[in-house]
Amino acid sequence: MLSTTVILQLVCPDRPGLVSEIAGWIAHNHGNIRHADHHTDDSERLFLSRLEWDLEGFRLNRESITEAVNELARNLNGQAQLNFSDELPRVAIFVSKQSHCLVDLLWRVRSGEIQMSVPLIISNHFELETLCRDFGVDFRYIPIDPVNRLKSESIMLQTLSDYRIELIVLAKYMQILSAQFLEQFPLIINIHHSFLPAFKGAQPYHQAWKRGVKLIGATAHYVTEDLDDGPIIEQTTLQVSHRDEVHDLIRKGRDTERIALARALRLHLRRQVMVYSGRTAIFA
Amino acid sequence: MLSTTVILQLVCPDRPGLVSEIAGWIAHNHGNIRHADHHTDDSERLFLSRLEWDLEGFRLNRESITEAVNELARNLNGQAQLNFSDELPRVAIFVSKQSHCLVDLLWRVRSGEIQMSVPLIISNHFELETLCRDFGVDFRYIPIDPVNRLKSESIMLQTLSDYRIELIVLAKYMQILSAQFLEQFPLIINIHHSFLPAFKGAQPYHQAWKRGVKLIGATAHYVTEDLDDGPIIEQTTLQVSHRDEVHDLIRKGRDTERIALARALRLHLRRQVMVYSGRTAIFA
Amino acid sequence: MLSTTVILQLVCPDRPGLVSEIAGWIAHNHGNIRHADHHTDDSERLFLSRLEWDLEGFRLNRESITEAVNELARNLNGQAQLNFSDELPRVAIFVSKQSHCLVDLLWRVRSGEIQMSVPLIISNHFELETLCRDFGVDFRYIPIDPVNRLKSESIMLQTLSDYRIELIVLAKYMQILSAQFLEQFPLIINIHHSFLPAFKGAQPYHQAWKRGVKLIGATAHYVTEDLDDGPIIEQTTLQVSHRDEVHDLIRKGRDTERIALARALRLHLRRQVMVYSGRTAIFA
Amino acid sequence: MLSTTVILQLVCPDRPGLVSEIAGWIAHNHGNIRHADHHTDDSERLFLSRLEWDLEGFRLNRESITEAVNELARNLNGQAQLNFSDELPRVAIFVSKQSHCLVDLLWRVRSGEIQMSVPLIISNHFELETLCRDFGVDFRYIPIDPVNRLKSESIMLQTLSDYRIELIVLAKYMQILSAQFLEQFPLIINIHHSFLPAFKGAQPYHQAWKRGVKLIGATAHYVTEDLDDGPIIEQTTLQVSHRDEVHDLIRKGRDTERIALARALRLHLRRQVMVYSGRTAIFA
Repeated sequence: MLSTTVILQLVCPDRPGLVSEIAGWIAHNHGNIRHADHHTDDSERLFLSRLEWDLEGFRLNRESITEAVNELARNLNGQAQLNFSDELPRVAIFVSKQSHCLVDLLWRVRSGEIQMSVPLIISNHFELETLCRDFGVDFRYIPIDPVNRLKSESIMLQTLSDYRIELIVLAKYMQILSAQFLEQFPLIINIHHSFLPAFKGAQPYHQAWKRGVKLIGATAHYVTEDLDDGPIIEQTTLQVSHRDEVHDLIRKGRDTERIALARALRLHLRRQVMVYSGRTAIFA
Repeated sequence: MLSTTVILQLVCPDRPGLVSEIAGWIAHNHGNIRHADHHTDDSERLFLSRLEWDLEGFRLNRESITEAVNELARNLNGQAQLNFSDELPRVAIFVSKQSHCLVDLLWRVRSGEIQMSVPLIISNHFELETLCRDFGVDFRYIPIDPVNRLKSESIMLQTLSDYRIELIVLAKYMQILSAQFLEQFPLIINIHHSFLPAFKGAQPYHQAWKRGVKLIGATAHYVTEDLDDGPIIEQTTLQVSHRDEVHDLIRKGRDTERIALARALRLHLRRQVMVYSGRTAIFA
Repeated sequence: MLSTTVILQLVCPDRPGLVSEIAGWIAHNHGNIRHADHHTDDSERLFLSRLEWDLEGFRLNRESITEAVNELARNLNGQAQLNFSDELPRVAIFVSKQSHCLVDLLWRVRSGEIQMSVPLIISNHFELETLCRDFGVDFRYIPIDPVNRLKSESIMLQTLSDYRIELIVLAKYMQILSAQFLEQFPLIINIHHSFLPAFKGAQPYHQAWKRGVKLIGATAHYVTEDLDDGPIIEQTTLQVSHRDEVHDLIRKGRDTERIALARALRLHLRRQVMVYSGRTAIFA
Repeated sequence: MLSTTVILQLVCPDRPGLVSEIAGWIAHNHGNIRHADHHTDDSERLFLSRLEWDLEGFRLNRESITEAVNELARNLNGQAQLNFSDELPRVAIFVSKQSHCLVDLLWRVRSGEIQMSVPLIISNHFELETLCRDFGVDFRYIPIDPVNRLKSESIMLQTLSDYRIELIVLAKYMQILSAQFLEQFPLIINIHHSFLPAFKGAQPYHQAWKRGVKLIGATAHYVTEDLDDGPIIEQTTLQVSHRDEVHDLIRKGRDTERIALARALRLHLRRQVMVYSGRTAIFA
């Protein structure tokens, strides 16, 4: 129903005339622009641009656009990323024992709300195996070897490679991935069950209850080496009261976690997120 | 501190190449674009564009930009509106007896948060006269003649003209302006104390209480002939409970009214609102 | 893990001493109160009370509490409803073609978040049959006979009776039940996909888009004869923008619908909702 | 218009029968209960109760209630606080250079929304002197002596004593009060411009911008020796985006700060806040 679009994300040093040059290049090639979003980060002197145009009617064919776009970026001393709206990225979901984010994501994939393919689910527990089978997704149990975490991670990396995975989603995985792992597989989205940077680390709801906050939150972010410090994509908060015990925060939090993660993932997959200087620009 | 920018709002029939043409025209005249936002309304086949660039360095001087922009718009079969960021529009605020929106707006003007000049306040009551004097604003008492409203309105129109008013803000004015008035002074922003289209007309909080809603709201909108049906700029909601009596809804609502009105007014004055087909696009 | 509690909901004419009398009766019978919530509706001169105490240690046994409570209510010229926290009410979910609310509710039941038994799902379409089977719930296809709706409804009523259903949840059923049906089965919770009373009736998202609102909403309410006019239990809103087409409102709305319905249902089942004068008091 | 009520806040060790005993005592003295709220903190085994009843008709007169209430509390091994709804507590507001919270509070006092008397404003700057005079409030300039802060604070304490101040509100005071000060004047409400515990200390908006959060917040809390760690009364959050510079966060934050502080202060003054174990229970 929806025709395919070309999505260009471009970052380069800021200077006058950039919007005109980029839009001019697209127009020159008969591209019909659907969305054009720009942002200038004044402190970094960076220009961020996201352009989306119809593939149909565009003078360059699918194969040759990448090279042309890279040349455009080189001329601007910048970097380009190119995607097509009909791509179906292969995504692995990492889980532990909790199912709420997983079920939510799989349902959204099935209903067409989130456009991705989920061929693989990895877990360090067995609890969610049946659920994965019900959804027809391969489930791999990869326990965390406490003495040799890197060994566990190398099995994961091999599995990810076998399945040609492009993106990992940590849907309440509750484990920390090593710097070595991140080096080899850097594209990971995580959901943290607090309003970061409050309550980093373990048991954020216990921390939140102890502190007596009146709002709890969830944060979806890209994973970096510094725990819970990666670029934030989406944050949500929710009212709580003194009547809520820790288990109530956990229960209420599930709703806000699911929504923050689903929104962040959708934004990422539609290439509406651009990362720069440890932050994100969201073109939505 | 902030240098002056040129703000162009343009609406025209959609077709390929528009972003390039408009950005190209600005680049050709050495304009350094700060913000470029576009929206295509598919059902109306309309292209909406808001561009903001530095006046300094632009090859056309302030006086000649208007003509150039109108020509640009004519070539695109569209309509353009041009503004400069250093303008200080002359705004009249209409009030009745309630002060919360008025105090809020005057404070925001004084603190520089909302950039406008308020030389005139019109009311059909005397209650807020002292307050206006404290803020150094002229207060005009213009009672509503129940048998001859048009007579009252003609006094208002004359006063607005005397003060060279460009925009009216109805800050809880609680009176309906006639079609004739709107014809002669069409640019009016109103705050309605409900989540429109729920609870149109009189006493929305009483209606809301009676209906037992769990959220109350406020709606800032442009005024049109059809009461409470004008294009919506901003809406806010707020949680209420069975413990709230009507007077609690009124009290709580004041906070949400003030914020919805102030946000809408700021968006309008920064030329971030574009109206089309009875709706608004907000480029913020 | 959690011990069973007795939940008393009582409505009676207001007068001094009620809290003392009711709490005194519980204390006299050695009940340890966990929650005690009261509300006085001044306009109706009504006293609403919800008390929850431990069954263990209470001097009356489970069977004899009902009679005692009814006598207490009679003495206060009021009405009492008695429930126990370990009850598992039998609930039928009515659906049409959309699965999001259904999946959400079934998942919450499975995870223990909503405490009820769902032995039956009724639909006027076949689309969700497989899903129901996956969750191990009986699915009954009962088409709506356009010439004889009452005939369809009598089949439903018979089925509900066969399954000993105590509560119906309309999870996007998209059909109107007749007054006759409601008379025979009056306990029904519905999710309406708008911020009621705005956008009653059909296609609220289309109406909302046309009106250009900046927030969309969802309303969970008890069903009464007057369409979309029943007592409201929960309302939620969500920000939208001019970039959202109707299908975006529908998509975004699914999240707010699911949450409003799940919250309302949980409140109802925990007996935290009291209905009076067409409104609800929520003791949560 | 509203008749005077007696407000009792009581904390004591939890045990069965407490609601009955306390409500029984009120009923015995012919008190007509308007609000009765209770909370049991299971981990601390504490029972918290707030009761509000009409003074008119109550068998004890205003003067003798305190003694009776203290006796009641002693019998329960607890502590009681007694207030009357017609009291007008004397409150000092501490400010620095920013006016938004101050103007907001003074307007709410004038409009009757917050019931208190503000005879004194203390500042370490001169900027807000005129504003205070406009509102008819005494303004005391008390500079902070960087070498001898205690000297400055002793002047403050003397001034507070002269004015018979009962409560201090730090409305963006931007200075830290010493442990000695807090010992002598322990009842202080502060507004912190972040969603605590995120971004404690100085320049929270700069920290928030740097971290790239998608929501900013404000926290109203009681002041304790541990900076920004006192019991939280109210928290609010607000959406921000990559387009917001630090000065935009500051501007947007003002709205959420004002509302969080005003709500917290109103709750405190209506005696709807109870503090225990570093947290608060809000009976609203």
